[in-house]
Amino acid sequence: MCQWWLTYVNPYILIHLLNWCEVVFMKRTHWCGELRREHVGLEVVVNGWVHALRKVGRIVFLVVRDRSGLVQAVVTPKNPNYSLVSELSLESVVAIKGVVRLRPPNQVNPEMPTGEIEIDVKEVQVLNPAKPLPLPIFDKELMKTTSETFRLKYRYLDLRRFEMLRNLTVRAKFITALREFFNANGFIEVETPYLARSTPEGARDFLVPSRLYPGKFYSLTQSPQLFKQLLMIAGFERYYQVARCFRDEDPRADRQPEFTQFDVEMSFVTAEDVMNIVEEAMRYAFKKVFNVDLENPFPKIKYREAMDKYGIDKPDLRFELFLETVTEHVRGLIPLREGDVARALRFNFSEELTKNVEGLIKEIIPSDGKVKYVYVLRGSNDVVTNEVGLAGDLIKVFNLGIGEGLVVTSGEYIKASEAIGNLRNSLGKLLGLADKNTYKFAWVVDFPLFELDEEGRLTSMHHPFTSPKLEEIPKLDTNPLEVTAQAYDLILNGYEVGGGSIRINKRELQEKILAILGLSKDEMLDRYGFLLEALEYGAPPHGGIALGLDRLVAIALGYDNIREVIAFPKTKEMTDPMTGAPSKPPEEYLREIKWIKVLTD
Amino acid sequence: MCQWWLTYVNPYILIHLLNWCEVVFMKRTHWCGELRREHVGLEVVVNGWVHALRKVGRIVFLVVRDRSGLVQAVVTPKNPNYSLVSELSLESVVAIKGVVRLRPPNQVNPEMPTGEIEIDVKEVQVLNPAKPLPLPIFDKELMKTTSETFRLKYRYLDLRRFEMLRNLTVRAKFITALREFFNANGFIEVETPYLARSTPEGARDFLVPSRLYPGKFYSLTQSPQLFKQLLMIAGFERYYQVARCFRDEDPRADRQPEFTQFDVEMSFVTAEDVMNIVEEAMRYAFKKVFNVDLENPFPKIKYREAMDKYGIDKPDLRFELFLETVTEHVRGLIPLREGDVARALRFNFSEELTKNVEGLIKEIIPSDGKVKYVYVLRGSNDVVTNEVGLAGDLIKVFNLGIGEGLVVTSGEYIKASEAIGNLRNSLGKLLGLADKNTYKFAWVVDFPLFELDEEGRLTSMHHPFTSPKLEEIPKLDTNPLEVTAQAYDLILNGYEVGGGSIRINKRELQEKILAILGLSKDEMLDRYGFLLEALEYGAPPHGGIALGLDRLVAIALGYDNIREVIAFPKTKEMTDPMTGAPSKPPEEYLREIKWIKVLTD
Repeated sequence: MCQWWLTYVNPYILIHLLNWCEVVFMKRTHWCGELRREHVGLEVVVNGWVHALRKVGRIVFLVVRDRSGLVQAVVTPKNPNYSLVSELSLESVVAIKGVVRLRPPNQVNPEMPTGEIEIDVKEVQVLNPAKPLPLPIFDKELMKTTSETFRLKYRYLDLRRFEMLRNLTVRAKFITALREFFNANGFIEVETPYLARSTPEGARDFLVPSRLYPGKFYSLTQSPQLFKQLLMIAGFERYYQVARCFRDEDPRADRQPEFTQFDVEMSFVTAEDVMNIVEEAMRYAFKKVFNVDLENPFPKIKYREAMDKYGIDKPDLRFELFLETVTEHVRGLIPLREGDVARALRFNFSEELTKNVEGLIKEIIPSDGKVKYVYVLRGSNDVVTNEVGLAGDLIKVFNLGIGEGLVVTSGEYIKASEAIGNLRNSLGKLLGLADKNTYKFAWVVDFPLFELDEEGRLTSMHHPFTSPKLEEIPKLDTNPLEVTAQAYDLILNGYEVGGGSIRINKRELQEKILAILGLSKDEMLDRYGFLLEALEYGAPPHGGIALGLDRLVAIALGYDNIREVIAFPKTKEMTDPMTGAPSKPPEEYLREIKWIKVLTD
Repeated sequence: MCQWWLTYVNPYILIHLLNWCEVVFMKRTHWCGELRREHVGLEVVVNGWVHALRKVGRIVFLVVRDRSGLVQAVVTPKNPNYSLVSELSLESVVAIKGVVRLRPPNQVNPEMPTGEIEIDVKEVQVLNPAKPLPLPIFDKELMKTTSETFRLKYRYLDLRRFEMLRNLTVRAKFITALREFFNANGFIEVETPYLARSTPEGARDFLVPSRLYPGKFYSLTQSPQLFKQLLMIAGFERYYQVARCFRDEDPRADRQPEFTQFDVEMSFVTAEDVMNIVEEAMRYAFKKVFNVDLENPFPKIKYREAMDKYGIDKPDLRFELFLETVTEHVRGLIPLREGDVARALRFNFSEELTKNVEGLIKEIIPSDGKVKYVYVLRGSNDVVTNEVGLAGDLIKVFNLGIGEGLVVTSGEYIKASEAIGNLRNSLGKLLGLADKNTYKFAWVVDFPLFELDEEGRLTSMHHPFTSPKLEEIPKLDTNPLEVTAQAYDLILNGYEVGGGSIRINKRELQEKILAILGLSKDEMLDRYGFLLEALEYGAPPHGGIALGLDRLVAIALGYDNIREVIAFPKTKEMTDPMTGAPSKPPEEYLREIKWIKVLTD
């Protein structure tokens, strides 16, 4: 088929060349997965990978895979390509021409969409032979015991699994649905810079040294926050963007150095307006992509209520299980410092899960000493506890029955609550209280504007551009910790999937907040001077939200791990085992950007 | 209206608070630009900016602007807000309630879509007063003389101009149309990492120091090239992405350190397949967004032919004006070194443009001495030339008539051609040969695989993953400069707007190309080891393209400057005058990433 040019080729390299020659290949007429009974009699070409190969007697059964699915092809010894085919390695790339025919009735495979037919092969081209794969991608059992790091090293093979293709396809469809919705509602997608100025928003910035201006740096944007506010000041009124965000944080299981945010901002709106349109968007996208009808409206919970009832601001609402404050019940039993509270969760468990429940408690409640805890799991024959001397008293005080568990935390209110609130979310899954097929969205509202950091300094609970409730502005001077923010978080099944607020649109108030956060006038002007100035030239009331797309799609597909819905994620350690990033660049590069010396302390 | 909470507020801060109070604002019932005769009699609320304000006698005419357009509002002295309104500064943010009424016939403004009506104002809220703007955004004449740097310093004001809103809206619509097309054709949008490993592709990488791994760096991806190839190896078959690309290049007028690419890759295709689908996409998007019918098919020009006829590989095809090779005509007149060629362009010009043509020639033809040039512009009374001693001879040799111009370059073929080819593109605009309303797309094909860099070393004309034409593989060993690539550029009106190729899908060939480019085996494995390995596990034939979205949209809207279609671009000097990026971060940040010392040479 590509002999025409062989005539003028040096015969020495001819054999070598034949290896490339097959790239003038037979092109598919059909996708593997679409062939059906109605195609019987048709001559077709499929392109794809050798998914399976078995010989029955001298007949070769080949299963060919492409993005659409699988189809069986049959090669008999009389086929001129027979010897080629019988030596084919799995995952080799092939083009196959043949005629579709019905399978004999006893070979029909009802579990395979193309299981009624097979291709009677006429011609086979091997477009690229494959070496044995290092990753057992189609062996489900072996894959379960394969480390995630190894999967990521060979991500391009891992992605061949239909599950991964499905995940990324659904992700694309979900984003498309959101774009459709926001486009239809008058929003304009605007791309904002990633190389920007360092304007810290809580996490660390990644810094990018400038080659042209030695000693100066760009920083990778943690979010488009300030640019989207500037777009509102520019009068764009309704903006969205599927934005990459970069944060240089310490490793944690579900963190990535870059992640994707569906970022929204609107002018002339209240918090209610933003929440309403985001709810609508979620209902539209979940219906369209998952055929799921979400609640209408989403429930709203006040931050204080969430902390009281659930211990955290992102409770899993798929099940009813409430925390109690039991400070007075346990006083005398558990040592309490001045101001400490005791919080308790009681639940039913089945005895075969005793070890798991105990393990979960130990895993989740921090062991940093800031929160003390005691658990009592009362089985039919024994009591499992970490405080043998206390268990009996607690069983009495709480009237704990057989098959009931109790966890009591004590310490500072927020810390004691959060420890047990996180435990509650996880217990819900372990004990089967949380229905896997339910998507329970809710808004958490009325957050405090500030909280105290580890050093006891005031820090923004969301970010410094969040507007307080206007009627509470007087308290900024007297009792800032009691000021409520016009902020709202969107939660889903125990995860925060979005956070937003009405922003400050007046310079005076913005300066006041920055001052409360400890910035001097000079620091304000240096870091945020452009924003403060912009607020004086006609900044409309505005607000918005940022939705965590990775998390949303992961939950929707039933994963705890966001890496299952990211094509090429970094490991928990922020590395890429495939390419070896981060890596040591050649010295010449470092000289070019004028960076020479690294002090590693 | 928001008095309910005033009761419990300390009267000391009450006056202060009233400033914030108005943020409980009247929300728009209509957009300014949508009000028409049919709304007469309706009470409406509009939100927006004070675009203009004039007093006629004691009546105040206020023009209010929002994203949709302008509307006139009228306030008479009997209005309780009269004194507030008459002192309003331009660009203040307001909410206005009133009744729509017909204007008196003599005040109808036919040039304003809302010019038949006005709002009889009942209530005005000042949501945010504005200080006088530093940028004269609505004074077209003053804006013409405003430096671009100053526009970018106040970009959020510059973006208030309807022209900029239009540009970014069209950009969003154009990208949406492309997404629609590719989604409908079975492509999956996949997000690939921006923080990756340095794998140089011709330009410099931006490096990002890793805080967790001191001495190691991520690099910002110059394009998703390797990731999209890995997605093909993963079996995704049809991929696209609207991808940000980062390149640390030296400043040039139309360069940005980050830009946006519409990135496409397909498996089991030939170059023709990729070109066909991209053509269809362009026809779809231009029809949908600009209502323009593009040619079908786009013409294809071979690289050699483009160089011969037009001098460059991105000729403006809106006009016919061809280069000639005149080496023999000018031999003896112009000094030629061994191997030099002389290339000529002759054209008609009108005499009032003589100075401009001369200026353009001097601006465009490089003065680095590598190309010599002579021009002769023969007017009715005089001859303008840079070589008085030659002009007469050239007029004779070329039989140059009055009103005819001639430019001859001499030097190495490519350099002499490109100098004059670039001139040709610009002359087309200056002389009015290029119709502004025509979009002339074409493909340039059959590029050489390699070219020589300044040091005379072989370098990839596109990138090292480009496949040669398979029948020319033997020439890789004997005469690599003659090997043709399976590469194609998309050009539009004298600009390259896309570049793509069929990629190498076999390890052996990829290694051969990298070796020709001068990489040792160790360097190959270190930089591209993961790609080379991936090619062995079943890499299908694949290819794709990257379209420059900024340039495409700029041309479509009639701009030479891509910054007109980017919301927050950097200046030519790669800085952001608004935020001050790049900047010197606080020392503590540099300590945290363990970078301490910068040697500035």
